[in-house]
Amino acid sequence: MLQELFSPGVQHALDIVGIFVFAISGALLAVRKNFDVFGIAVLAEVTALGGGLFRDLVIGAVPPAAFTDLGYFLTPLLAAALVFFLHPQVERTQFAVNVFDAAGLGLFCVTGTTKAYDYGLGLTASATLGLATAVGGGVLRDIIANEVPSLVRWDRDLYAVPAIVGATIVALCIRFDTLNGFTTAFAIVTAFVLRLLAMHYHWRAPRAWNRRSSAQEPAEEKATAQ
Amino acid sequence: MLQELFSPGVQHALDIVGIFVFAISGALLAVRKNFDVFGIAVLAEVTALGGGLFRDLVIGAVPPAAFTDLGYFLTPLLAAALVFFLHPQVERTQFAVNVFDAAGLGLFCVTGTTKAYDYGLGLTASATLGLATAVGGGVLRDIIANEVPSLVRWDRDLYAVPAIVGATIVALCIRFDTLNGFTTAFAIVTAFVLRLLAMHYHWRAPRAWNRRSSAQEPAEEKATAQ
Amino acid sequence: MLQELFSPGVQHALDIVGIFVFAISGALLAVRKNFDVFGIAVLAEVTALGGGLFRDLVIGAVPPAAFTDLGYFLTPLLAAALVFFLHPQVERTQFAVNVFDAAGLGLFCVTGTTKAYDYGLGLTASATLGLATAVGGGVLRDIIANEVPSLVRWDRDLYAVPAIVGATIVALCIRFDTLNGFTTAFAIVTAFVLRLLAMHYHWRAPRAWNRRSSAQEPAEEKATAQ
Repeated sequence: MLQELFSPGVQHALDIVGIFVFAISGALLAVRKNFDVFGIAVLAEVTALGGGLFRDLVIGAVPPAAFTDLGYFLTPLLAAALVFFLHPQVERTQFAVNVFDAAGLGLFCVTGTTKAYDYGLGLTASATLGLATAVGGGVLRDIIANEVPSLVRWDRDLYAVPAIVGATIVALCIRFDTLNGFTTAFAIVTAFVLRLLAMHYHWRAPRAWNRRSSAQEPAEEKATAQ
Repeated sequence: MLQELFSPGVQHALDIVGIFVFAISGALLAVRKNFDVFGIAVLAEVTALGGGLFRDLVIGAVPPAAFTDLGYFLTPLLAAALVFFLHPQVERTQFAVNVFDAAGLGLFCVTGTTKAYDYGLGLTASATLGLATAVGGGVLRDIIANEVPSLVRWDRDLYAVPAIVGATIVALCIRFDTLNGFTTAFAIVTAFVLRLLAMHYHWRAPRAWNRRSSAQEPAEEKATAQ
Repeated sequence: MLQELFSPGVQHALDIVGIFVFAISGALLAVRKNFDVFGIAVLAEVTALGGGLFRDLVIGAVPPAAFTDLGYFLTPLLAAALVFFLHPQVERTQFAVNVFDAAGLGLFCVTGTTKAYDYGLGLTASATLGLATAVGGGVLRDIIANEVPSLVRWDRDLYAVPAIVGATIVALCIRFDTLNGFTTAFAIVTAFVLRLLAMHYHWRAPRAWNRRSSAQEPAEEKATAQ
């Protein structure tokens, strides 16, 4: 079992932290979109648990962890309550939220990859599901909020690349039989640091070749910005 | 088997009624959005069966009931045909549609909870899936129609709370081993009546604390109203 | 096993072609929406594999083919790379893309139906899943791109009908025990040709009865056109 690289207690505590910070990002978007208290709770749950839920359905791990671990379910409600009462303060700590979100990204791309591999998927499929675990909740969050997913927008700092790198490191370690607590931590930290750098230097992914010089640009720009 | 609280015939008839009224709400939105006849049928099916489909995938009940019971599949098509030809008349009976929709809400939050418990989920997870069964179809309906889900909008009458109350009553009855035909009916009726009261008195859920006095309000308001 | 109507090699090659052309349509929409390179890849993957993924989750074929066949996963990335560099040229061949997309539609509605039947579903449910396999990816593509799904819009040429006809032919052939390589090819070609005719003659599905004369028309029109 690759899952037991860390002691179960440490692993679980890390999962809860990742779920909490993802839930904060969902709850904050709900407040910005003017949703009511249930909308805040729904968006917190979906953002925090959606990626793992998708992974578990795909690998056939039913019922998914999101519905068997009470802590996974209650943590987003706590985050939602916090944001409900303290949203101006939470918004002011946006930087801290972003740092935690980066930590969640690094953690989930790694644990998602190992869990998928444990269920018998190939290395490429496992890494893909690791990526899906890390970014899936955010995509569902944006779909419910009726926005173009942040993941695919060109005007956002790199988000997929750090998760891809983290998941790939894990897959390579499995391939060469060198996955252990140390290399796992290395993959998590690499993804985490890459995301921090992407935010700090505003690294962005290119749009389609020659897209920038397109005559349609201004209209498109407006459409994307809604 | 908790499922057999009512005679199977009664249970099935209630399910069909719930599916029918949910399908009507989906078909009506499709007409309002100017969809073609296939769009009307798709939105009727998704609204009526989406919540149960999600629940069945999560608890591992595959193939889901939506694909094994022909009546479940054909009922939304009947509702779509009705709305296709008679939509002005159906719209005029909006009050009746709302009452039936409230009945479907009460029914599905209860049957969803008991089915999830039958498949081995915990009480909290079962109640959550009961809620998801009741409101999931409506969320999918709004996502396909490219609108902010009615469920999370602050300017709509309470919809989640009645379902939460109904699902919680069932979970408590299971916990204290008092679930029977009578208490099940009580849970359904409670959710149903709560929803009717919410519509009559326009009960709404609060938005985030201090949200109302926010300086950004007008712009946000407009964004929400689209 | 109905699956072996064609030699496995032919079957697989046809699947890859269908996946490729669906991926092209997803990637092109991503370029039009101004997504970055990851958005192009995500939309290519979702469009190409989404319908089959939904079918496999519903019939309990986990892990889904999309995650076990490396060719299925890599083909959309190839399509995304092609569109990334050559999108003006690809757009200019829109007619060819549409023809291939029609071929993918015909192919997927047929293979989706037979795979669902192989997993024990009834004929109606199998045909429905065949339809879902063929059109599901496009619906997910439009949801992620934050647009009203092309499938349900009245101002688009018939897309569902050819797939419904193809899936129905297969279901009838299974029912009367006459499914073989020839009748399967007939179903695929029928759906393919129907879609080509729908595009050529701009066949459209009707909107709700008397919808056209509605006094609200102009406002609605605008709302639909966004």
